Amino acid sequence: MRCFKLTLAYDGAAFAGWQRQDAHRTVQGELEAVMARIEGKDVSVAGAGRTDAGVHAAGQVASVRLENAITAAALLRALNAVLPDDVRVRAVEEMPLAFHARIHARQKTYHYWIWNARLLPPLLRGTTWHVPTPLDLEAMAAAARLFEGTHDFLALQAQGARVKTTTRTLWTSRLARIDIGEGPARLPETPSALLRYEVSGTGFLRHMVRTIAGTLVEVGRGRRAANDIPAMLATRRRAAAGRTAPAHGLVLWRVGYEPLPADPPFLQPDVI
Amino acid sequence: MRCFKLTLAYDGAAFAGWQRQDAHRTVQGELEAVMARIEGKDVSVAGAGRTDAGVHAAGQVASVRLENAITAAALLRALNAVLPDDVRVRAVEEMPLAFHARIHARQKTYHYWIWNARLLPPLLRGTTWHVPTPLDLEAMAAAARLFEGTHDFLALQAQGARVKTTTRTLWTSRLARIDIGEGPARLPETPSALLRYEVSGTGFLRHMVRTIAGTLVEVGRGRRAANDIPAMLATRRRAAAGRTAPAHGLVLWRVGYEPLPADPPFLQPDVI
Repeated sequence: MRCFKLTLAYDGAAFAGWQRQDAHRTVQGELEAVMARIEGKDVSVAGAGRTDAGVHAAGQVASVRLENAITAAALLRALNAVLPDDVRVRAVEEMPLAFHARIHARQKTYHYWIWNARLLPPLLRGTTWHVPTPLDLEAMAAAARLFEGTHDFLALQAQGARVKTTTRTLWTSRLARIDIGEGPARLPETPSALLRYEVSGTGFLRHMVRTIAGTLVEVGRGRRAANDIPAMLATRRRAAAGRTAPAHGLVLWRVGYEPLPADPPFLQPDVI
Repeated sequence: MRCFKLTLAYDGAAFAGWQRQDAHRTVQGELEAVMARIEGKDVSVAGAGRTDAGVHAAGQVASVRLENAITAAALLRALNAVLPDDVRVRAVEEMPLAFHARIHARQKTYHYWIWNARLLPPLLRGTTWHVPTPLDLEAMAAAARLFEGTHDFLALQAQGARVKTTTRTLWTSRLARIDIGEGPARLPETPSALLRYEVSGTGFLRHMVRTIAGTLVEVGRGRRAANDIPAMLATRRRAAAGRTAPAHGLVLWRVGYEPLPADPPFLQPDVI
C-alpha cells in the first residue's frame, strides 16, 4: 500500500462541488471512478477542501492510497488520459503512507474574482462576479485587512453548518486591482476592471470566503463602513454580515503543508 | 429610418456561428430576435464577418436599420438587458443610413490562441488550442511573417467555399509568446505557455486563419520548413497546407472602417 498526493485544477462550472454525491457529477466522484479503474477495486480519495458547487480550483490537493505498483509519473499520465478535461491533475507525489490531504493541510489560499464595470466580457462570465456599480476600492481594501488575525468567524458561516469551533486565523486578507493581461478573455479598448480578493488562513468555514467577498462589496457600495468589520464579527450573527457572493468567482488557489519527515510518529497510520 | 453600428463580443461556445439558421442558436439569430422585440417587426442585422461555430468575438461589428426613435445609448442598454450573457453589445453608434458592417469593412484582425504545454489549465480549454508537444517558436514566427503581403490564398480556403477572388492582402501576420497575466485562468507555479497568432488584413477566406494556425503548428513541430510557405501558397491546393486548427482558439478581435463622411455619395442607400 502506498500513498499519493495529487495536485488538481478544475473548472467548477459542471460539477456539483468536490464531494461525492450519488445523483450528481462531482470532482471526487470523477477521481474515484478513474482510480477504481486503475486499482481494480473501489478507492477513496480525500480532498483538502470540499469546494462547493461551481467553485473552481487551481491547486486543490487530494490524497489516495493504492495497492497498485504504478509510479507517480505513470499515475499522473493515466489520470489525465482518462479524466474529463475540466479536471486536470497537475502533479502526483508519493508520500508517507499516513499522509492525509485534509487532516495535514496547514494553510489554504483562495482567490475571489470580481469584474467591476458596466459590461462583463463574455469570456470572464464563468470566473468573475459581475458587479456593475462603482465600488470604493480603498474602503474595500481597508475592510479586507480587518479580517486578518484570529477571530471567531461564526457570523460568516453558512446557516446550518456545524463545526466544533468557528475560530480561525487568517494570515492574509487583501483586495487589489489586477491587470487582466493580454490573454483571450480581454476586450479591445477595455481597461481591466478585475479585482482579486486573496485570503489565506488555517482553515475556512462553509461559505466564509464568499460571505467576506459579499461583505466587501457592500463596503465598496457605501452600504457598510470599512471599520464596521470588527463589530460585525463580534455579533456572531450571520444576518450581520453581507450576502454570500456567487460560487463561480471563487478559486481554491493553493493548499499548504508542513514539510513531512519520512515516517514521523504523528503520521503513523494507526493514529489517524 | 436610422442606421446603427453595433460592436459585439461573444463566447462562441454555445453558438452555431454568426449566421442565422432555423434549427440552431446563432449570434445573428439572437440579435435579430431581440431587435424584432424592440422594433415591433422583423429586423435584419448584418455582420462584418460570418464567424464559424465555436469562434469567439471581442470586436465583431454589425449594422442594423431601425424605424424606432430609440437613442444609441438606450439601444445599448436595451440590448444588453435582454440578450443572453454570452453575447454583449460593447457600443452602439448612429451612422449614415447607408452604412453596412460587411460592405464597408476595410480591415479585420483575428487572434488565434495556442497553449503549448503538456497540461492545459481547465479554465483555458474553451479559448485555446492545446498543443502539448514542444514547438519551435522561432520557426513559427518566421513562417508567420511569410503570409504577409498580397497573395492568392486559395490553398488555405475551406473545401467547397466559393468566392470571386481568393487574393487577399495581410497587413500583419505575427506569432508571439504572450504572458497569461494574473487573471482567474492562471495556475500557481505554472509558466505561461500561451502563444498568440495575430493576423490582420483586408479580408479572409473561409477557415483561412485556422488553416494558417494549423500550418504554423506543423512548422513548429518540424514537419514543415518555415521557408516552405511561399511554395505552399503557390500550389493553390488545399492539400498542400496544414490541417484546420479548432474553432475555439479563434477570436475576431477588431473590424476597421475608414472614416465615413456624414453623407458621402458612395454611401447613398440606392448604391448598395
